[in-house]
Amino acid sequence: MLQINENYQKLPGSYLFSTIAKKVAAFTQANPDKNIIRLGIGDVTLPLAPAIINALHAAVEDMAAAETFRGYAPDLGYDFLRKAIVENDYKARNCDICEDEVFVSDGAKSDSGNIQEIFGPQCKIAVCDPVYPVYVDSNVMAGRTGVYNKETEMWSNVIYMPCTAENNFVPEFPKETPDIIYLCLPNNPTGTTVTKSQLSQWVEYARKAGAVIIYDAAYEAYISEDNVAHSIYECEGARECAIEIRSFSKNAGFTGVRLGFTVVPKDLKCNGVSLRDMWARRHGTKFNGAPYIVQRAGEAVYSTEGKAQLKEQVDYYMKNASAIKQGLKDAGYTVFGGVNAPYIWLKTPDKMTSWEFFDYLLENANVVGTPGSGFGPSGEGYFRLTAFGSYENTVAALERIKKL
Amino acid sequence: MLQINENYQKLPGSYLFSTIAKKVAAFTQANPDKNIIRLGIGDVTLPLAPAIINALHAAVEDMAAAETFRGYAPDLGYDFLRKAIVENDYKARNCDICEDEVFVSDGAKSDSGNIQEIFGPQCKIAVCDPVYPVYVDSNVMAGRTGVYNKETEMWSNVIYMPCTAENNFVPEFPKETPDIIYLCLPNNPTGTTVTKSQLSQWVEYARKAGAVIIYDAAYEAYISEDNVAHSIYECEGARECAIEIRSFSKNAGFTGVRLGFTVVPKDLKCNGVSLRDMWARRHGTKFNGAPYIVQRAGEAVYSTEGKAQLKEQVDYYMKNASAIKQGLKDAGYTVFGGVNAPYIWLKTPDKMTSWEFFDYLLENANVVGTPGSGFGPSGEGYFRLTAFGSYENTVAALERIKKL
Repeated sequence: MLQINENYQKLPGSYLFSTIAKKVAAFTQANPDKNIIRLGIGDVTLPLAPAIINALHAAVEDMAAAETFRGYAPDLGYDFLRKAIVENDYKARNCDICEDEVFVSDGAKSDSGNIQEIFGPQCKIAVCDPVYPVYVDSNVMAGRTGVYNKETEMWSNVIYMPCTAENNFVPEFPKETPDIIYLCLPNNPTGTTVTKSQLSQWVEYARKAGAVIIYDAAYEAYISEDNVAHSIYECEGARECAIEIRSFSKNAGFTGVRLGFTVVPKDLKCNGVSLRDMWARRHGTKFNGAPYIVQRAGEAVYSTEGKAQLKEQVDYYMKNASAIKQGLKDAGYTVFGGVNAPYIWLKTPDKMTSWEFFDYLLENANVVGTPGSGFGPSGEGYFRLTAFGSYENTVAALERIKKL
Repeated sequence: MLQINENYQKLPGSYLFSTIAKKVAAFTQANPDKNIIRLGIGDVTLPLAPAIINALHAAVEDMAAAETFRGYAPDLGYDFLRKAIVENDYKARNCDICEDEVFVSDGAKSDSGNIQEIFGPQCKIAVCDPVYPVYVDSNVMAGRTGVYNKETEMWSNVIYMPCTAENNFVPEFPKETPDIIYLCLPNNPTGTTVTKSQLSQWVEYARKAGAVIIYDAAYEAYISEDNVAHSIYECEGARECAIEIRSFSKNAGFTGVRLGFTVVPKDLKCNGVSLRDMWARRHGTKFNGAPYIVQRAGEAVYSTEGKAQLKEQVDYYMKNASAIKQGLKDAGYTVFGGVNAPYIWLKTPDKMTSWEFFDYLLENANVVGTPGSGFGPSGEGYFRLTAFGSYENTVAALERIKKL
């Protein structure tokens, strides 16, 4: 008899950003004259840098002539891109990562959602709380998370590591030993991160526990402090316990271009089985590569012009982050993040819940943010604003918030 | 304790095309002077049509200016593309499919591999034998296929529907009732298909059995006979039992561009649960859309110029198919397919196994094809040649084969 994957039925409500989109649409329909400023979803607004545009046009031309046309891409991604990644993201930081440990994909969201597939159904996951919802949701779909408690908004078989103002947003080692530890650092949504020394302790902990760290470094380009690691492979021993996921969405504005990659070192094994080989098998069976033209755009991210232009973009967004942080402080809010990440995390005023503050901000300032509780129970009472708007809109939003 | 997904360990050998690539690489290294002609993997060789190239350049320009820049795409894909799909692939053929039943993706391979996720672990799948390996392999990874028998090369919990010369390559209704039926029509690898009337019988069968048909119509553009359906939704009742997967790889040469879509009708339910809503949830959680520029290229496939230019490409490849079919016949081979699909399926001579013939052809004619046994046990003793080479290479390959 045909049966559905019953785990899907366990998922509460719909995906966070869909809910926000529906609320905003309803408000817009009821108030067509209001000018809404969106500092909610983490979507970039600056156009692609000239070096990227040039690379895209050139790659399109390659596809126009039989001699330079490219069909199916190599399973792991084109050599030219994997070489650039290894040189710039790893060798330049003294990380020992090889080209055949890099798997190019259509983005970090796909990889974040799919990576759990190579693990067994009994594995217990640990997540920072709050965090990007895909880690938990993809494990719910795979049946690893147990029963959902509507009161606590927690899953019985997930280890939550609260990251709040009380512990300075640094996750503590859990009492129960996890098998898979998701770390998103710098963190989405809190915009905070840990020092390299703290990260090294996590690597040591994972090795002792026999656990794998899934390290989501999507916001790496925004790190401004010297004592913060850009890659987990800067930490000794990480090759034996960590998978790293990277995105081009935030460092190069590729949210609509779609490109990312995942690193699975050959030293990472479970009972002698290479996780790198397992991921290669998944890649070869269920995926057919990122577009050639997009991989060429990715290569341009690492060119001299590309690097210079993208540094300007990151600086632009981080100027927004500073403006938000300072503006909120001036308005009396308690704020975190915004130094090594394009996210500002604020405590809601007057003990409002996260969704109450969402409605309040939408209705009174016509500003869209993201409710902290959407990222996990410990996000309740917090709220996320992103630095990805235009500078003008960001400043205008802050002016409105100050007037509330 | 950390555990891997043990199902991966059950997968025999590596993916078909990786094995071929390794054999060809070894031969090339040993015989650097030989000029190899590749009629193996189903990869296109003609450059993208001018209408597609123009659309890509224009979309790249959109990404260069803040006013026209696009970030994250809508979950299901851009309206402009889904409208074009509905108009041209469905309404034009009197198929009742709406835009919110169309899910744009990065390609039919991803969708073919991922679609099984929305079904329960106990579901029993039926596949044509031989067929595109992804259906079975993705179900092996999900633990649905039971135990692999090395002798028969069959899985204990998979229903195989042999498609051979004996039954004119038309699958017969299985004795045991399946829950999920994969139909790839026109078929990869045999290049054969069924009539609309035969397909309607499958729809009727699935409805009575309470089964879902996963209909892979990747080769739809190559159909030349009037009594063959282009979409399963041309058959009455298919909205209640069928999911259709489409590709842009073969009709528009997008193997390296990456675009496809899946149709899940709202009438398709299991115990009252909408499979369309489940697929939407998967899409929203584990995928972030196909690139904007690629979706614009997809739109151009349906433009007046695009259609005319792509018809020429299909005609070009089908001229190759005719040349291969006639050439092989002249050389005394028994051949099938090549009328509604770009694949020629031949019986190996002298009772050679498929892999023996692969080696024979590679070594003596320096022509690469695909061993039929790689697509399933009933493919043993058959061999696939594809029409996607250049006409010159195709004719040259046939000349070599005739001289054997």
